[in-house]
Amino acid sequence: MSILVKGGLVVTQNWKREVLKGDVLIENGKIVSVGHAKARPDEVVDASGCIVMPGLINCHTHVAMSLMRSIADDVKLDKFLDKTFAIDAKRTPEDVAVGATLGCLEMARSGTTTFVDMYYSEDAIAKSVEEVGLRGYLGWTVLDEKFTTQKGKPIKNCEDFIRSHKGKPLIKPLVALQGVYVCSDETLMEGKELAAKEKTFCHYHLSETRLEVYEFQKLRGKRPVEHLAEIGFLSKGDLAAHSVWLTINEVRALARAEVNVAHCPTSNMKLASGGIAPLPEMFHEGVNVSLGTDGCSSNNTLDMFLEMKFASLMHKAHRWDAAVLPAQKCLDMATVDAAKCIGADKELGSIEPGKKADLIILDCAVPSMVPTRPDNVVANLVYASPSHAVRDSIIDGKFVLRDRKIVNLDEMKFLKRADVAADQLLARAK
Amino acid sequence: MSILVKGGLVVTQNWKREVLKGDVLIENGKIVSVGHAKARPDEVVDASGCIVMPGLINCHTHVAMSLMRSIADDVKLDKFLDKTFAIDAKRTPEDVAVGATLGCLEMARSGTTTFVDMYYSEDAIAKSVEEVGLRGYLGWTVLDEKFTTQKGKPIKNCEDFIRSHKGKPLIKPLVALQGVYVCSDETLMEGKELAAKEKTFCHYHLSETRLEVYEFQKLRGKRPVEHLAEIGFLSKGDLAAHSVWLTINEVRALARAEVNVAHCPTSNMKLASGGIAPLPEMFHEGVNVSLGTDGCSSNNTLDMFLEMKFASLMHKAHRWDAAVLPAQKCLDMATVDAAKCIGADKELGSIEPGKKADLIILDCAVPSMVPTRPDNVVANLVYASPSHAVRDSIIDGKFVLRDRKIVNLDEMKFLKRADVAADQLLARAK
Repeated sequence: MSILVKGGLVVTQNWKREVLKGDVLIENGKIVSVGHAKARPDEVVDASGCIVMPGLINCHTHVAMSLMRSIADDVKLDKFLDKTFAIDAKRTPEDVAVGATLGCLEMARSGTTTFVDMYYSEDAIAKSVEEVGLRGYLGWTVLDEKFTTQKGKPIKNCEDFIRSHKGKPLIKPLVALQGVYVCSDETLMEGKELAAKEKTFCHYHLSETRLEVYEFQKLRGKRPVEHLAEIGFLSKGDLAAHSVWLTINEVRALARAEVNVAHCPTSNMKLASGGIAPLPEMFHEGVNVSLGTDGCSSNNTLDMFLEMKFASLMHKAHRWDAAVLPAQKCLDMATVDAAKCIGADKELGSIEPGKKADLIILDCAVPSMVPTRPDNVVANLVYASPSHAVRDSIIDGKFVLRDRKIVNLDEMKFLKRADVAADQLLARAK
Repeated sequence: MSILVKGGLVVTQNWKREVLKGDVLIENGKIVSVGHAKARPDEVVDASGCIVMPGLINCHTHVAMSLMRSIADDVKLDKFLDKTFAIDAKRTPEDVAVGATLGCLEMARSGTTTFVDMYYSEDAIAKSVEEVGLRGYLGWTVLDEKFTTQKGKPIKNCEDFIRSHKGKPLIKPLVALQGVYVCSDETLMEGKELAAKEKTFCHYHLSETRLEVYEFQKLRGKRPVEHLAEIGFLSKGDLAAHSVWLTINEVRALARAEVNVAHCPTSNMKLASGGIAPLPEMFHEGVNVSLGTDGCSSNNTLDMFLEMKFASLMHKAHRWDAAVLPAQKCLDMATVDAAKCIGADKELGSIEPGKKADLIILDCAVPSMVPTRPDNVVANLVYASPSHAVRDSIIDGKFVLRDRKIVNLDEMKFLKRADVAADQLLARAK
């Protein structure tokens, strides 16, 4: 099966960050050539007047929470958690599946082709991911048994999930660890060992709020990252979400251990985490950083284009410097740097021969994307918030969104079902 | 001519902030009833599964700059102004018209029905506004002659514009004053007098950057608002854009004078104005505040849904308080409070009998708007960034956008023309 994406403005995200007018040839799920192809493909897709770019990678979310969109807004974090957990506790496996499919649809429509998830019941979520056709890096959440409603031991559940989902083309199973506030050192080290044994990586919440850092410090006499470094938990290839409340020494500890960070600016702003993740310091010390939307109850979208804009503007405002976090760096964080965060820099994140064919096509014939030229296309992608311009999404060489239509399921029918499921969930939680 | 908008979820923005399922009846450009109408209208619009809400009001922009989208990003303010002004100086009247139409189309598609503009050549902009069918509050910019490339005296140009555009149904001509850094006291007072004589109001930039405030203070020994209060410039009904760098005494001076504020969070963040407009203090002191996108070179969209989200999250992050600037207040700032800012609270800003029929319809059958219920609809409007869900826009009782199609002009043809005009403008500026 070969597809020729013809005549677009290709934002390659290759190492030269080339933007060129030309064709992208896809064969058997991989990108074969970029430039001018003379092949006779099975299919030609007209991309004239369009941007062709790598699919975005959302490095931190809880996709099943999409069913809980806008249920706890404008309240302090403790009330937010109370409200969210109260509803979450009433969710059925069906709700998880419906929420996950809903989130996958939203991502497919807004240009995300790969996402990293942290939740329970990742087996149900994996089914949704495969149904829609996205690429899911799915972390089953491990925490101390006393803090969870999971049936069985979380570490065992995670292990079972990883073993049963290894080698699937669209799924990469991970170890997720909820955070130091509900994970003992033993739980953390068990998670680390499981990840090593199964040749995957650990994804965890880290120092999101001041409260959690100060409470940990009060209890243990150290800051979380200092402690995690000391016990030998931090590992090359880990993906730490949030990472807001860090000292420069903690940033250095993450850099030394080659831990990656998933920065979640919208969620941090909305929940008023207070601090601003020290991105310029992370870059300076060599920490690799990506972006995550977090879940739909704290954002309340999964729109990665918007996440890039929030990232850039949050840091510009915070540093009083309009040159901080330029558009190109934001796009890198959502593509090539993100691919590196999930250990997939050889496979994903750019449009280059040999990489997997995960790409999106944006139709620039909308007022908000005029003018788009090679020299302003990256700024438009980041600052003009063009998720509504996403026309096609190709993942693993297959159309997931085509001419603005979801390919693999009846979207309208599903959305009605999701509406009913949300109503029922809220009724149960009352 | 009567239209019945049937069966939608109506976010009325009436004084009770009612959200109800029902119909909106429009007759001869006005809203006649809200609830269940038994009339036999000329036309029925099915709004089931949709949100029906007042059109958004963008209280500060430079619409013609849409042609200069993403031409000066990620640079400090001085370089931004150099780059922007260099290109602006090369614009032809044709460029102003094309840029204005482009911006009007973007606003029509993203739910804005009324906007406040500040620029030269507002006569050309007025034509674009009328062509697309938006409602424009258009301020011809007045400044000291030595600072401008305008032909003729700016105050005279402004007066001519106001006199020739008074009484047009979709246009309200204003006096715009660029700011204290290019307007002498005499110019300011001439502007004020002209506005009083012509029964309109003054719209001006105020204390956007720290530099402008400190330079003014160095020169005049006072802060800008203190000075403007002292010389008797501040007037009831003025609309001051930005208003970032204010002391509490200056906030009180604005409140006393009944000056309104157009807050521009995205532009302020992107240009790294540094300070954050003291909105909680403005509310406390009784200043009425609306939202503005500012121009497309500093945002880079005119999406008012996004502006609401940026407003809320900017202040939540800044104040370390997730309860600050809740969704309802943001929606108020973009509708009823904005209507008050432009002296149109009896006519615009809510869906109530007797008001002008400026309303928009959002189709919730998109993943990012599921679930939408009466109790989360306002949060979805603000936080789920749903401009892409805008299906219809009715202004003055007439469709401007219908089933996602621009009614009054050939959009595709125009966008191609705009692309060419942008290329030519940049070529001239090189």
